[in-house]
Amino acid sequence: MSLDDLKALARPARTKVVLLVMDGVGGLPRAFDGKTELEAAQTPNLDALAAQGTLGLADPIAPGITPGSGPGHLGLFGYDPLQFRIGRGVLEAVGIDMAMTDRDLAARGNFCSVDAQGLITDRRAGRIPTDVCTRLCGLLEQIRIPGVDVIVRPVREHRFVVLFRGEGLEEELSETDPQEVGKPPLPVRAAVERARHAAEAANAFVAEARKILAAEHPANMVLLRGFSRYPKIPLLTEIYGVRAGVIAVYPMYRGLARLVGMEAVKTGDTVADEFGALEKAFGHFDFFFVHIKKTDSYGEDGSFDHKVHVIEEVDREFPRLLALKPDVILVTGDHSTPASFKAHSWHPVPVLLWSKWCRPDGADGFSERECRYGGLGHVRSAELMQLMMGYAERLTKFGA
Amino acid sequence: MSLDDLKALARPARTKVVLLVMDGVGGLPRAFDGKTELEAAQTPNLDALAAQGTLGLADPIAPGITPGSGPGHLGLFGYDPLQFRIGRGVLEAVGIDMAMTDRDLAARGNFCSVDAQGLITDRRAGRIPTDVCTRLCGLLEQIRIPGVDVIVRPVREHRFVVLFRGEGLEEELSETDPQEVGKPPLPVRAAVERARHAAEAANAFVAEARKILAAEHPANMVLLRGFSRYPKIPLLTEIYGVRAGVIAVYPMYRGLARLVGMEAVKTGDTVADEFGALEKAFGHFDFFFVHIKKTDSYGEDGSFDHKVHVIEEVDREFPRLLALKPDVILVTGDHSTPASFKAHSWHPVPVLLWSKWCRPDGADGFSERECRYGGLGHVRSAELMQLMMGYAERLTKFGA
Repeated sequence: MSLDDLKALARPARTKVVLLVMDGVGGLPRAFDGKTELEAAQTPNLDALAAQGTLGLADPIAPGITPGSGPGHLGLFGYDPLQFRIGRGVLEAVGIDMAMTDRDLAARGNFCSVDAQGLITDRRAGRIPTDVCTRLCGLLEQIRIPGVDVIVRPVREHRFVVLFRGEGLEEELSETDPQEVGKPPLPVRAAVERARHAAEAANAFVAEARKILAAEHPANMVLLRGFSRYPKIPLLTEIYGVRAGVIAVYPMYRGLARLVGMEAVKTGDTVADEFGALEKAFGHFDFFFVHIKKTDSYGEDGSFDHKVHVIEEVDREFPRLLALKPDVILVTGDHSTPASFKAHSWHPVPVLLWSKWCRPDGADGFSERECRYGGLGHVRSAELMQLMMGYAERLTKFGA
Repeated sequence: MSLDDLKALARPARTKVVLLVMDGVGGLPRAFDGKTELEAAQTPNLDALAAQGTLGLADPIAPGITPGSGPGHLGLFGYDPLQFRIGRGVLEAVGIDMAMTDRDLAARGNFCSVDAQGLITDRRAGRIPTDVCTRLCGLLEQIRIPGVDVIVRPVREHRFVVLFRGEGLEEELSETDPQEVGKPPLPVRAAVERARHAAEAANAFVAEARKILAAEHPANMVLLRGFSRYPKIPLLTEIYGVRAGVIAVYPMYRGLARLVGMEAVKTGDTVADEFGALEKAFGHFDFFFVHIKKTDSYGEDGSFDHKVHVIEEVDREFPRLLALKPDVILVTGDHSTPASFKAHSWHPVPVLLWSKWCRPDGADGFSERECRYGGLGHVRSAELMQLMMGYAERLTKFGA
């Protein structure tokens, strides 16, 4: 169903919804007992909720497709990731909590090394320390381009973000990274006429950067990629009329949530801190997105047991969420990150939805296995938002 | 699959299909034993068929979306309700068995009360009795508009339908109801140039109505809403080549079925009468839509036990249907109306499909619970028609 259709159905309500995302929670069985991370974890609280709720499996993008963090979360927020695309420049900016405006064109930057002929000798400038990166970003920010403001921020090691702020800076641009050493950085080319102004600004920036960095070997040049404008996304407030808050330790997830109109809630770094932040903010919002990062981090590390421990930590804190008595709870992941696979994967994610209007599945617990038999069936992640809103009685009926 | 694609696959056959719709049959568990209405009902005949048939769950519109009766049934007839939309004026006309042509523009009317300044004091004219409404509709039908015939029919209390019949009467019109008292009725405005003629006709009608009703306080004015033309829908006869009959007690469901090309079969008011009508008409049609209303009515009343009794009544009559030996039977609802929710809801509906070509699920019975494990999986209601036609061997293979 289109966002316009959903907007037409939205109606005011006093119900509260909590979307709890354990990043990369979906897993694969370990060898000795065939249990996934979620199945191996001792999760009495989630299991009890699963018995009363309705389960399902969700494909974040489409069957067989592995999502990045951006599309994975956009899907959970109800936006078809195939329709709403976020450029890598924007994602990088969002990831370091940079405030973007609709006059901004973002790019990912790398410091790199070039030789006397200007040919690239190291695309990552020997992974310079972050403090060097920070100092060099300060130098680059002195670049003046007529009619365009330049904002440069360090990310980590050799990586930075540059925002070009001005009128008519379109994003249809080629990248300067030739993706191999022994070649010179490429000029930025406009794929369409209307992007010519932006191409000129980017090329002017690169030319100035070359001069400014001349004596800074190994970081004596820059490469720019992923030119992208802040996407035009209808906000959750506009579509559903909900006031939405995000509780996330990592800035990228706060940034993604802000893209769709959520307000950031202050939180500490631990899972317990995040549940504490939820308690404090509970009166101020209708919709909460709580993001747990470390399930994914340990999945990527291949640490099955550590991922299990994070899930168990969430389960221990979970009664604090229940005590707030939200009307709808949805627990899921933005994608799977099986510890055995050590990376994001395409496997569908387990979904647990609870409200007083559920037809209980009577499940034994919350697991990929039980979710296969759930009453939600097999859905796309982008359909979960309308399910949450439906169960929260925030959508009126379609047609008479 | 598109209706054009289905039309290309349709092939003649002598098979017969019965679609039995228990309106709003999907339910939610009652407290004391966790059984839904369908699970609480004693339904030995449906249960026996479920053991031989294939089950599934169907979302009438999309996950989380609550359907009105119009879209709910269009879905069951194989039309994507998001693509084929029926205006409220048409639905109201259909609901009182008015015959519409493709030259007609329909609107829902309310009698209302206005004061000496023409400001609305009661949007429903104190809910005048239906016989007063009927007399006033007779007065309004005397209105003459050049080139446009006006047909006015009472619905109930203050509600009526007006059809404007003529050439080029387009539907892109604003409504006259300001939705609050203390304001005057609004003029009808054309949203696009081609609807100007229709706006003029509607405004002329309202101006004349004001004069005719001047002395009829409290019903001394009218409000018009939901301007809509008879939708262009490819008929079942055209798509599948089936001759289709509808057996329904309530005129709205006969009207919806006529929209897609079904012919109404005469029936009495009881469930037994409807099965009797099916027996009599069985030789005359290939496809039967049998509509049982009261499951929904009792759901909306919150009467769990009464809803159960209607389901049991259907089950008692069911052997009469089996005795006719149709080739395909599909039993489902147009949406859920859980007694605990007292309204249409978004929950998926149970589906039981039987033909000699089923892979039996070996289910214990026909229930929401068993349907979760069914071989049909979790589908959209609009896919059920192609399933029925497939099982009826009325579709040839797609591609060579």
